[in-house]
Amino acid sequence: MPARRTIGVDLGGTKLLAGAVDPELAVHYSAQRAVAGLDQAGLIEIAVDAVLEAREAADGEVEAVGFGIPCLIDRRTGTAVVAVNLPLADIAFADVMAERLGLPVFVDNDGNVAALAEHRAGAAQGASDVVVLTIGTGIGGGLILGGLPYRGAIGSGAELGHMVIDMDGPRCQGNCPNRGCIEALASGTALIREAHRLASERPDSSLADALAQGHELVGALVTELAHDGDAAAIEVIELIGARLGVAIANLVNIFNPQVVVLGGGVLAAGELVLGPARAVVAQRALPPSRDTVEIVPARFGFEAGMVGAAALAYDGLAGRPGAR
Amino acid sequence: MPARRTIGVDLGGTKLLAGAVDPELAVHYSAQRAVAGLDQAGLIEIAVDAVLEAREAADGEVEAVGFGIPCLIDRRTGTAVVAVNLPLADIAFADVMAERLGLPVFVDNDGNVAALAEHRAGAAQGASDVVVLTIGTGIGGGLILGGLPYRGAIGSGAELGHMVIDMDGPRCQGNCPNRGCIEALASGTALIREAHRLASERPDSSLADALAQGHELVGALVTELAHDGDAAAIEVIELIGARLGVAIANLVNIFNPQVVVLGGGVLAAGELVLGPARAVVAQRALPPSRDTVEIVPARFGFEAGMVGAAALAYDGLAGRPGAR
Repeated sequence: MPARRTIGVDLGGTKLLAGAVDPELAVHYSAQRAVAGLDQAGLIEIAVDAVLEAREAADGEVEAVGFGIPCLIDRRTGTAVVAVNLPLADIAFADVMAERLGLPVFVDNDGNVAALAEHRAGAAQGASDVVVLTIGTGIGGGLILGGLPYRGAIGSGAELGHMVIDMDGPRCQGNCPNRGCIEALASGTALIREAHRLASERPDSSLADALAQGHELVGALVTELAHDGDAAAIEVIELIGARLGVAIANLVNIFNPQVVVLGGGVLAAGELVLGPARAVVAQRALPPSRDTVEIVPARFGFEAGMVGAAALAYDGLAGRPGAR
Repeated sequence: MPARRTIGVDLGGTKLLAGAVDPELAVHYSAQRAVAGLDQAGLIEIAVDAVLEAREAADGEVEAVGFGIPCLIDRRTGTAVVAVNLPLADIAFADVMAERLGLPVFVDNDGNVAALAEHRAGAAQGASDVVVLTIGTGIGGGLILGGLPYRGAIGSGAELGHMVIDMDGPRCQGNCPNRGCIEALASGTALIREAHRLASERPDSSLADALAQGHELVGALVTELAHDGDAAAIEVIELIGARLGVAIANLVNIFNPQVVVLGGGVLAAGELVLGPARAVVAQRALPPSRDTVEIVPARFGFEAGMVGAAALAYDGLAGRPGAR
């Protein structure tokens, strides 16, 4: 009997990762493609091509394909609704891909599949109630409740990045009409904004130096300067961590989860961002939830979406795409 | 065969209601007691006494008793943890009551049982994913997810009143260590605070008149003045409604519920508070969730906790105290 495989596809705003993954969620092969600037037809061609490459090299029999896409999804119709960075709005993506690939196709939001990866084989293995935040350019969310993915009445829930923690705060980004969302205040984008502010307020800082020397103040540079001990860079990351803490305290009060998993590029700062987040949760959340929750970094980095999408495909084959 | 009954007990900070309820959740008899200022032993005596009165008059065979109490509950031990207004902290309340009553006893948070009442026989009947907010002196929350009560890993979830929407906002009340929670900004307590502020800012208003004449600015009076057209009173209620809207938009993004049910004393203001809340959700929440959610008043008023506690007892007897 050939080894079982599914292909998990992480379809991001700039690149696509397609991996052949076994039932234990080990990755056997992965293909990558650039997707920035493609139109809908081009995007579908590239996705088909990457899946076929991974299928060819899968070292086993590919039974289904899972996709994680940064869209709000209406599961009543299988249609992607509101795709912030991809030309996928209003198409029945799963049907289109199934037709092209001749394989069962399962589609979910990128945050949900990342949560699935962490729950099945990552930092939240064995936990029944899990909140996942993926903190990059935006903030994605995923929920495992009672051991199963929670997606809401029509599949557009778990948009945890668009929880307001400052109702009169700055406008959010992309297609979000809200203000003071955690995506507006504690994402990688917010980190860069705060880094610029601190650089101008602290002309003696390494942060200001770096900017003056023409470096772009990206998250990785701010993190590096903070690890090197620059007080301004540390302050930027602590501010982001504290704001995340306010949001996590909300989620702890709402969900009483065993584990909160934090992933995404901003987590490269490690304890510098986790420490302040944990401290704020300890100050602000209610007992006993605050005393029993663990707040931990994600196990999966850039492969979370791909591995989770493969797990989604196994769930779909087993007829359990999440009871909720 | 005698008619089936359970007794539902709503154990509030000032009074206790115990009702004999049939499987369709119709109330056949109810007993009321004042409980303010009682110590733990006194409270337990009064509860036993009220349950026995309801059992006597139940017109059927009482099979179990359910309690809704305003406590954070640790379901691992059945212990009430953090009871804001009652001397119940750290006792195994269900065990104590079962021993005294000689009947199976089931206990849950008051917000959770109110959600159960609305889901089984109220404004959220037939919906799978429901958020309930009970807006009185504090703000209680309840969740029905995938058709079942959601309580979190150890039963202390659904504390929706302690979701922060203004991270630098006013200190919350009672035992909550947080600031800018919706309980601090949009509860009946907040309504009274804002009414005093507006009364002093608008000396020509009926609100100011009422205060000058020695009336206490309770929620019912502010609501009455608003219904009579006083601009200041209307502004108070609209402000509370708009803040509730910010919180509901968060919950819509998080849960993608079919229905959000709003109950509690503040809802006496009806459309005056619901209208602004709905308008803010339409402005701030993400599609498609914001377009599919219904935001409706609770069916059950002061009996929500009692009826829901009776439903909890039926669930408990059937071995389904909420799979989650």
